[in-house]
Amino acid sequence: MSNEGSNQQLFLARIPHGVSGPQDFEVREAPIPVLKANELLIETHYVGIDAALRLITRDSDEFLFRVRPGDVVRGSVAGRIIESNNPAWRVGEYVNGSLGVQRYAISDGSGLERCDINQAPLGAWLGGFGVSGLTAYFAVFDACRPQPGQTVLINGAAGAVGSMAGQFAKLAGARVIGIAGGPEKCAWLINQLEYDVAIDYRRPDWFAHLKEAAPDRIDIIFDNVGGEIMDQSLKLIGMNGIVLMCGSTSQYAAEEMKGPANYIWLGTMRARLQGFVVFDYAHRYAEARKRMASWIKSGRIKIPQHVEAGDVGDFGAVFEKLYRGVNRGKMLLKLPAAGA
Amino acid sequence: MSNEGSNQQLFLARIPHGVSGPQDFEVREAPIPVLKANELLIETHYVGIDAALRLITRDSDEFLFRVRPGDVVRGSVAGRIIESNNPAWRVGEYVNGSLGVQRYAISDGSGLERCDINQAPLGAWLGGFGVSGLTAYFAVFDACRPQPGQTVLINGAAGAVGSMAGQFAKLAGARVIGIAGGPEKCAWLINQLEYDVAIDYRRPDWFAHLKEAAPDRIDIIFDNVGGEIMDQSLKLIGMNGIVLMCGSTSQYAAEEMKGPANYIWLGTMRARLQGFVVFDYAHRYAEARKRMASWIKSGRIKIPQHVEAGDVGDFGAVFEKLYRGVNRGKMLLKLPAAGA
Repeated sequence: MSNEGSNQQLFLARIPHGVSGPQDFEVREAPIPVLKANELLIETHYVGIDAALRLITRDSDEFLFRVRPGDVVRGSVAGRIIESNNPAWRVGEYVNGSLGVQRYAISDGSGLERCDINQAPLGAWLGGFGVSGLTAYFAVFDACRPQPGQTVLINGAAGAVGSMAGQFAKLAGARVIGIAGGPEKCAWLINQLEYDVAIDYRRPDWFAHLKEAAPDRIDIIFDNVGGEIMDQSLKLIGMNGIVLMCGSTSQYAAEEMKGPANYIWLGTMRARLQGFVVFDYAHRYAEARKRMASWIKSGRIKIPQHVEAGDVGDFGAVFEKLYRGVNRGKMLLKLPAAGA
Repeated sequence: MSNEGSNQQLFLARIPHGVSGPQDFEVREAPIPVLKANELLIETHYVGIDAALRLITRDSDEFLFRVRPGDVVRGSVAGRIIESNNPAWRVGEYVNGSLGVQRYAISDGSGLERCDINQAPLGAWLGGFGVSGLTAYFAVFDACRPQPGQTVLINGAAGAVGSMAGQFAKLAGARVIGIAGGPEKCAWLINQLEYDVAIDYRRPDWFAHLKEAAPDRIDIIFDNVGGEIMDQSLKLIGMNGIVLMCGSTSQYAAEEMKGPANYIWLGTMRARLQGFVVFDYAHRYAEARKRMASWIKSGRIKIPQHVEAGDVGDFGAVFEKLYRGVNRGKMLLKLPAAGA
C-alpha cells in the first residue's frame, strides 16, 4: 500500500463557486493518529459521495452543518477497525460513520455503526443499504405509503435515493414514473429497476411526456432535485397529494436558490410539500435493513451503485462527476484499502 | 333609485397587467332579466372584493376558473330576493352567492346561501362571517389546531382572512404575531384584535423584528400573501411546523410568479407547506357560524370590514384599493340598494 504509515486527509481549499471539483479541495499528509484510551482506528475502504456536501460548503451559516476552508471535508465513510483500545469494538469489524474524507480516522465509537457484510456488501452501507436507501424506505413505507394503483413520480430517479425509492414504490404496488437525464439512464430505469415510465428531462418536450404519462395526475412525488423539474411537476400533483422533499440537489450549487413558482398548485389540490429527515427513524433502521436484506436475497430489489477507484486526492474529481450526473445509484470512491 | 328598470353589469374589458384597476373593467346597461319558471331575482346590496379575481383574469387557462375579456366579472355578492318563481325562496330573504358583479342577478337557487342577519350583518356574510372567516376558522380549528403557548404567525394579518385567523388563534391560546403594512395597521392589530406582536413589513428591518419576536421559532404560519414575506418567514418555521396556504395574493398580479427559495427549510425542520381549500368544509359551515355568532355576541371576536359605497362602475377603483392595501378586514363595495 502506498503512503503506509501516513494519513491522507482532504481539506476544503476554498468556498466553491458553481459545480464543485478538484480545484476546491486539497490533500495533506499527516501522521496516523496514536490512540488514546477507549479509541479505535479505522482504515477507510469507501467514501460516500453526497450531493449535500455542496450545500454545507456554501458561504452561509444558514445550514445545520458547515465545512469551511481549512476544515477536513465531512463525509460518510465505511471501513475496517485496525486497532482498538475500546472493549466494545474489535479489530476486523466493519463500520461506517461520518468520519471525514481521510485514509485513517479515530473514533471513540460514538456515532459509529457496525456493518454486517452478510446483509449487504460494505459499499452498499453508504448507499442503497445506508442512509440513501433508508431515506427511500421510510419515505415510501412510512411518510407517503403509496397504495396499489396510485401514481408515484420520482424526480432524480437514477440517483442514490431515487433508484431505491422507485423500487420500493413498485413493491408497494404503485405505478412508478421516473425522471432522469439521458436515454441510457431512462432505459436502465425501465429494464433494470422495472419503472413503468421513464422521462428524459434533457428532451425539450419532457413535460409533455410527463403529462401524457399521468393523465389522472400524480398522487405522490418523491423529489430529490428541486429546481425546474420539481417546479413543473407541481402542476400535475393530484388531490390531497404529497410532495416529499428528500433533497434539493439542483439548488445546492446555485448562486441564488430558486423556489417552485408553481407551489400555488398545492393550494388548489389540497396537497402538501413535506419536509423529511431520515435520522428521525434511526430507532427503526435495523427493522428496515432486515426487510431490505431479505429483498436483496430474493432478488426483489437491487442496490445500484457507481464505484470509482482512487485515492483521497481523487475525491474532487469524483464529486464533480456526481454533479455531472454520470452515476446510476450511489456514487462511491473506493480507496486502495478496499482491495481490487 | 337611479337606473331603476335597467341592470348594470360589469365586464372584463381587457387582460390586466400589473395591479388591476378601473381601466380593466367596463359597465354595460341591460334590461332587468325576466324570470322563467323556478327562477328568482336578486338585488345586489354588497359586492365582495376578492384578491383572487386578479388570478383568474390572468392570460392563462391554468387556474380552476377563468374570466376573459367580454365576460361578466365573477364576484360574490349579497342581496335581497325581490321576485321569486321558486317556492323554496321567498321575496325579502337575504342571500349570498357567486352571482357576478351586477345590480340584479337571476338564479334558480343553486349555489345560493341564505343569510341570517340576526347572526351577522349582511355585508359580513361576504367577509369575516363568509368565506374569508370560514377559511380562517377551519384553517385554525381544523387544519392547524394551535396549542396554548404555541407561536402562530399570520402573514397578511390585517386582510380579510388574516384578521379573523389571528383572532381565532388567540381564542385557541396561541401567541400570535401578525405581519401587515404600515404603523396604523400594526397598531390596529394590537389594540383592536389583541395580537401579541405586529410587524410592519414596510420597514427594512422587518425580518430582524420577526426573528426577535420568535426566538423559539414559529409553530404555524398562516400565509395569505406568498412572495417575499412568506419566503423569509420560512427561515423561522419550527420543528414539524405547518405553513398553511390560505392565499398567495402577492403573486396573483405578478408577471412571473416566484416560489419561496427558502422552501428547503421545510426539509430541515420536517415542516410542511399545506394546501387548503375551505369549500371542503361546506358541510360544517353552519356549525362554525353558530360558534362565531356566539363569539360576536359576547364580544370575543370582531368582524372587521372596509366598506366603500358606490355603484357597479366603481368596482375597478375599489379593487385597486385592495391591492394598495388600504383595507383592514374584508373590502366591500356597497351598492345603493343597501341603503345609506
